[in-house]
Amino acid sequence: MNFSSDNVSPICPEILNAIAAESESAALPYGADDQSRQLDAAFSRLFGTDVSVVPVATGTAANLIGLSGLVSPFGGIVCHHHAHINMTESTGVAFYGNGAKLLGIDGPSAKIEAETLDRYLSTHISNGMHSVDPECVAITQSTEFGTVYDVSEIQAIGKVCQKHQTRLFMDGARFANAVAALDCHPADITWKAGVDVLSFGATKNGALAVDAIVLFDPALRRHTEKNRKRGGHLFSKHRYLAAQLLAYLEDDLWLRNARHANEAAKELQKSLEQIGATAAFPPQGNELFMHMNDDLAKRLGDNGLAFRPWGSIGPDAYRFVCAWNSPIEAIRDLPHTLA
Amino acid sequence: MNFSSDNVSPICPEILNAIAAESESAALPYGADDQSRQLDAAFSRLFGTDVSVVPVATGTAANLIGLSGLVSPFGGIVCHHHAHINMTESTGVAFYGNGAKLLGIDGPSAKIEAETLDRYLSTHISNGMHSVDPECVAITQSTEFGTVYDVSEIQAIGKVCQKHQTRLFMDGARFANAVAALDCHPADITWKAGVDVLSFGATKNGALAVDAIVLFDPALRRHTEKNRKRGGHLFSKHRYLAAQLLAYLEDDLWLRNARHANEAAKELQKSLEQIGATAAFPPQGNELFMHMNDDLAKRLGDNGLAFRPWGSIGPDAYRFVCAWNSPIEAIRDLPHTLA
Amino acid sequence: MNFSSDNVSPICPEILNAIAAESESAALPYGADDQSRQLDAAFSRLFGTDVSVVPVATGTAANLIGLSGLVSPFGGIVCHHHAHINMTESTGVAFYGNGAKLLGIDGPSAKIEAETLDRYLSTHISNGMHSVDPECVAITQSTEFGTVYDVSEIQAIGKVCQKHQTRLFMDGARFANAVAALDCHPADITWKAGVDVLSFGATKNGALAVDAIVLFDPALRRHTEKNRKRGGHLFSKHRYLAAQLLAYLEDDLWLRNARHANEAAKELQKSLEQIGATAAFPPQGNELFMHMNDDLAKRLGDNGLAFRPWGSIGPDAYRFVCAWNSPIEAIRDLPHTLA
Amino acid sequence: MNFSSDNVSPICPEILNAIAAESESAALPYGADDQSRQLDAAFSRLFGTDVSVVPVATGTAANLIGLSGLVSPFGGIVCHHHAHINMTESTGVAFYGNGAKLLGIDGPSAKIEAETLDRYLSTHISNGMHSVDPECVAITQSTEFGTVYDVSEIQAIGKVCQKHQTRLFMDGARFANAVAALDCHPADITWKAGVDVLSFGATKNGALAVDAIVLFDPALRRHTEKNRKRGGHLFSKHRYLAAQLLAYLEDDLWLRNARHANEAAKELQKSLEQIGATAAFPPQGNELFMHMNDDLAKRLGDNGLAFRPWGSIGPDAYRFVCAWNSPIEAIRDLPHTLA
Repeated sequence: MNFSSDNVSPICPEILNAIAAESESAALPYGADDQSRQLDAAFSRLFGTDVSVVPVATGTAANLIGLSGLVSPFGGIVCHHHAHINMTESTGVAFYGNGAKLLGIDGPSAKIEAETLDRYLSTHISNGMHSVDPECVAITQSTEFGTVYDVSEIQAIGKVCQKHQTRLFMDGARFANAVAALDCHPADITWKAGVDVLSFGATKNGALAVDAIVLFDPALRRHTEKNRKRGGHLFSKHRYLAAQLLAYLEDDLWLRNARHANEAAKELQKSLEQIGATAAFPPQGNELFMHMNDDLAKRLGDNGLAFRPWGSIGPDAYRFVCAWNSPIEAIRDLPHTLA
Repeated sequence: MNFSSDNVSPICPEILNAIAAESESAALPYGADDQSRQLDAAFSRLFGTDVSVVPVATGTAANLIGLSGLVSPFGGIVCHHHAHINMTESTGVAFYGNGAKLLGIDGPSAKIEAETLDRYLSTHISNGMHSVDPECVAITQSTEFGTVYDVSEIQAIGKVCQKHQTRLFMDGARFANAVAALDCHPADITWKAGVDVLSFGATKNGALAVDAIVLFDPALRRHTEKNRKRGGHLFSKHRYLAAQLLAYLEDDLWLRNARHANEAAKELQKSLEQIGATAAFPPQGNELFMHMNDDLAKRLGDNGLAFRPWGSIGPDAYRFVCAWNSPIEAIRDLPHTLA
Repeated sequence: MNFSSDNVSPICPEILNAIAAESESAALPYGADDQSRQLDAAFSRLFGTDVSVVPVATGTAANLIGLSGLVSPFGGIVCHHHAHINMTESTGVAFYGNGAKLLGIDGPSAKIEAETLDRYLSTHISNGMHSVDPECVAITQSTEFGTVYDVSEIQAIGKVCQKHQTRLFMDGARFANAVAALDCHPADITWKAGVDVLSFGATKNGALAVDAIVLFDPALRRHTEKNRKRGGHLFSKHRYLAAQLLAYLEDDLWLRNARHANEAAKELQKSLEQIGATAAFPPQGNELFMHMNDDLAKRLGDNGLAFRPWGSIGPDAYRFVCAWNSPIEAIRDLPHTLA
Repeated sequence: MNFSSDNVSPICPEILNAIAAESESAALPYGADDQSRQLDAAFSRLFGTDVSVVPVATGTAANLIGLSGLVSPFGGIVCHHHAHINMTESTGVAFYGNGAKLLGIDGPSAKIEAETLDRYLSTHISNGMHSVDPECVAITQSTEFGTVYDVSEIQAIGKVCQKHQTRLFMDGARFANAVAALDCHPADITWKAGVDVLSFGATKNGALAVDAIVLFDPALRRHTEKNRKRGGHLFSKHRYLAAQLLAYLEDDLWLRNARHANEAAKELQKSLEQIGATAAFPPQGNELFMHMNDDLAKRLGDNGLAFRPWGSIGPDAYRFVCAWNSPIEAIRDLPHTLA
């Protein structure tokens, strides 16, 4: 069983079928095809408001390009020190943001707390020439430590942003897992709470390669599309990005896949706790961070489980990620089948 | 029949099958999977020399990232005025090249002539502080006007580059069509002639979305990979890029598809000439540029042919592009079936 | 006599005195001093309209930073092929413009003609994703070939820009020489004709090192100042920039210096023509471009004249530049004193 | 008495005279003049080794351009959180560094400790694609809190850099004050300890506007000069930068000015302590950070002292900076003359 990441999982059948179905005919390139033209409407239905959607093939591109419209070349983006955009996306934020700077702050379990943010913005917005003023706040949902902001937490952050006139971005590489965990409407943790732009992940949750930049402020479309093209992310066969996304939304596939992954993670937590591991955080989505001793880690590896040490949490910490296709029965049986 | 571009064509069956086959199992992300690890060897066999391969999902990304290792932020890239990188890739060259500048020159049928290039480089390399020195030359094979550099032309350009110590880049979005047209070994028009980096196109020729940056100078790998990541082009499910490329190379699918497209173009030229059009250039690959009067253009449109006016060649000029799946019989019959 | 450039000339006495006078006392840094606070008013009086002034120490910085507010990272700046920003300022335009691209066009004697510009903008503004749309036009006054746009020529260009909704920038490294040549009000060839931003040169015309970015659109101030700081061009001892500029404006020193240089150039032209040289263009400002044979060029050099060959005009062409301190009597006597 | 910064001080007489002396004659531009050609030799004598010198007009430019050769667009620069490059130079590091990222760490009194640095580099250099690897370390001497690294501290940092193969940069805006405080040879705290590039400040210590980028690795010259030109920092009247620097080195003017400022700071500390203030750090150079109550602060202000609150140290903390011309007698008398 491979828990090293959810991106080790393959394409789920519905999406693979959609790709195959697109291969029967010709279609105009660069988003002028029928499927691509349905995207705005499909996502607007999902979110219950008019949105503009700009699909790209990777989550990093979705973050970098999505963020770029919210910050000037002289501005800063406040994020958690452990944010993916700060730790794992090279110098991409400054690249697409023409020099914009990440400003890391702390908070428990990779979450930014509204009060901390308020204090930070109050002391760091100077309107001067010398320093880098925060112009945008970026949060990750679910977070890099597998936790999930609840609705009120995001609302509180949104209010702080409004107070300081900063924009709000959400890295939603695992957005589906958060919605599944909260059992809320996707609007509740996005535009209704003040989010301006969301990167809506699909790749980790069953797609081949597509994440959607969802713009709740349609005025951002032109800049976002221009930056996508400049970055080489405008697909000629754009319809394959659209086909994946439409299949992903259809019949709530995105939620079904996420619920499966979350349930698998819950079961995995139970199984691992039964054999002596302890959770570093109360896991809510599809990522687990577990403390365990070397013996147990070795034993799991010897039994064919793949997972990764996670030094930023501790020397005895490991990450396990479940996906849309994780074998729940086998996970439940783990304590009994382990040699 | 849709001749508006080769990128309107769908995925060819062999590549679709390869994508489906990858969906049976888990695999490590970011290029650590088995398929990805075969890429260097497969391309090294194809080219008869050791190469490093960095796949990306679009031709624009392949050009921009491939070029970026060959020029400094203060340097220039000499290309034809009509080059795709100059006309159709936004400000991407300066973006990935940290400010590097395109220097357009002229030449017949979108081709750079070695003598013109030699003269240009002789007068424009100053080694001073103020001007932008050419550091790299970029050619397109086959060209933006559907013509093909023959082996000796590329060799001559390569020698000029060597003389002036400039690097040589080849935009090979339609490289397969050029090799099919010349019936040469791919090495003859690349590394043996002095090409440092090739963007090896697959998307237009049957893939879903993948072009390979082929580095004939392995020292470029690190910069190229770092720039790919920074640009958000490193796929987590990298194996799907690899699977497409491996299927594309297997049993010379890339060449078979290109030969089909080229033959279709030849037949289309004949058919269009029979009904009164004339070729703007001697077509060699899969792109035709035809002069025709308004009546004929309208008649073709009314009969369901899609194609595009091409103002940069003339007010009565149109582009027709054939693909791996163009219906050769129907093309041959065109003069007879046209209403 | 050194005619190799006007930047070989030293600081003129009035400006040197102003610098010395500033050295009597302490003053707040970064533009908060008394002198700096007078700049907007002084330039507003000069131009007869409210302007914002951002001083920098070099003409290149004035051009690059001044331009940067008029173009997006995805946009183009139309300029003459021979424009200083295109030929002699490294890759600076893309640097400060976050990737913005120079689009060179032709015209006689380094001047853009309104009709050519209109045609170019009509065919190159696509509002598409792929190409680089012109967003700004940049002209140089006086031009790189020593000619001067007259008032009606600039008005015509301004109208074309208005028609196509592009911004208009003026590189005025030798603006004073143009105003002196035209004997017009500075407003006539700037904001009244549609110029948005002017780089107002002082360095070549008697200052130590200062050129003023004059913003006729005050909304550009914040971006311009932010970009100046980012580029390291905000002086801590800003008052010395201000003191130079105020002295430069006082009692029309800028015009007096320019008139002197222009007159010297006129006399030099006469003297050179008497001994067999011919002007490449009708010279209007302080720059001459002369054709002459090798013998004459050598003879001038042997007599201690410094000047530079100018290959972009012709193999027998040379540039002579006069300055605020060029010795007019000696220039007149040249045909007689030459050995 | 104005202690709000050392940059409120005017030009010192020796440097003003040097500027005036340059105004007697013509000289070639862009560094081809006699004075500019002496710079390398003059600084090589000062440092006792062959160095290349690239002068610019501001300390920010010296830092940004000097750093740019030590880091790739994908790399990080480790600095103290309170470093000037991190707090007060806008997004300039990413600008000149083509995206390079600042990585802030902690340490007492704005100093990086070798052990902390070693631990940081050990855990943050991954050689992977995703994260930003530290490629350079930047320290400030004297520091932003007025403290000074002693020779052994810099040697220890140099060794850590060598161990991890990272480059070492020194922001020496107040380098003279550090050398004066340590009474060491300038080589001891630069190249002998492993510093690759130093920004050697002069502006705050008596010049009009010039800081020198001192390259201890001559291979960096070309990149540094190219980046200077691109940034608009290459002066046409370059000789005035050179003249300031040569006068600054002559007869150890730089050290004499710094010793004066340091002594003034010492006296000021004594005087302030006598009236109830306490030093936040043991002051070593020309900057003092003092804690005092509101009453005392108000009283000082009422008596005509200018100084600035310094919130990053504490709500009751203030900065006082002395300069080359601070009135030592009046400072000594302060406790007695205060109303």
